[in-house]
Amino acid sequence: MNLELTDAIAVLERTPGAFRALLGGLSDGWTKSNEGPDTFSAFDNVAHLIHAERTDWIPRARIILAQGANRRFQPFDRLAHVLESQNRTLAKLLDEFARLRADNLATLRGWNLSESQLALEGEHPELGNVTLRQLLAAWVAHDLGHIAQTARVMAKQYREAVGPWRAHLPVLDRA
Amino acid sequence: MNLELTDAIAVLERTPGAFRALLGGLSDGWTKSNEGPDTFSAFDNVAHLIHAERTDWIPRARIILAQGANRRFQPFDRLAHVLESQNRTLAKLLDEFARLRADNLATLRGWNLSESQLALEGEHPELGNVTLRQLLAAWVAHDLGHIAQTARVMAKQYREAVGPWRAHLPVLDRA
Repeated sequence: MNLELTDAIAVLERTPGAFRALLGGLSDGWTKSNEGPDTFSAFDNVAHLIHAERTDWIPRARIILAQGANRRFQPFDRLAHVLESQNRTLAKLLDEFARLRADNLATLRGWNLSESQLALEGEHPELGNVTLRQLLAAWVAHDLGHIAQTARVMAKQYREAVGPWRAHLPVLDRA
Repeated sequence: MNLELTDAIAVLERTPGAFRALLGGLSDGWTKSNEGPDTFSAFDNVAHLIHAERTDWIPRARIILAQGANRRFQPFDRLAHVLESQNRTLAKLLDEFARLRADNLATLRGWNLSESQLALEGEHPELGNVTLRQLLAAWVAHDLGHIAQTARVMAKQYREAVGPWRAHLPVLDRA
């Protein structure tokens, strides 16, 4: 699919509700377990998405739209959420993610982006030149990747419990 | 995690809402696209889960609990949903899945299963002897696997659109 703003927003606006429906009220056994050292639990996935709402997508879009002399993005810290989310509850994180996402989508809609604006470029510190259109597509795909990761890490908590069914459930052995 | 009934039911009861939050009202571009020939779209994932509600988990649990002379399960048809879901809308499928799941969880709760019942065995046509406890764990992991698959197939619709970000989004190239 080519990125159309309405398609992208349709997914972006559903993500907080999908996380809430999947995780809201679940025990820590489901939400705090991970796939081993230095991997994300379901809780970590939500915390990481919150950090991205604050520091990644919309801030980078602003840099692109400003078209200033320096269009290089700040590096994104993929582990900043660990400290930020200490001593917080999943319920609070789900609320915060929903609020930040709604605010960011209001900003995005308010820009009423034109095709020529979507083609403007910024500089990713690792990936080089990227367009605003690519950034918005990456925002959507990043959401969906973290939904997939969250479901996978939860499934893996039953890797042994399923017994022989492990052979039929590839999600249990996916990296 | 060992399977505890309350943990298993907590996930099973959330799955229909998670699919509804993620997919409800989305365009066919998101819900009918797949990963290539003989792969599942988001729509197919929901249709497949409906077929499993009807023919797989609870019917097999009944065979185990009955402990009759023949404890061999009927093979599960992984493609039966294709014909069954023709000419139906995703909105109808989401409703049907929620209704069937609620009914099946009412059945499961009503059994008030004991530890000794959870240890009873049936015969899977391919996997051999399996316990009721393993069947319930597989039901949960199967749900989560299809949530992950649904998010992945949607993400892949933007595999080209993300441009250089593809290198940072492993979900876009996962089989």
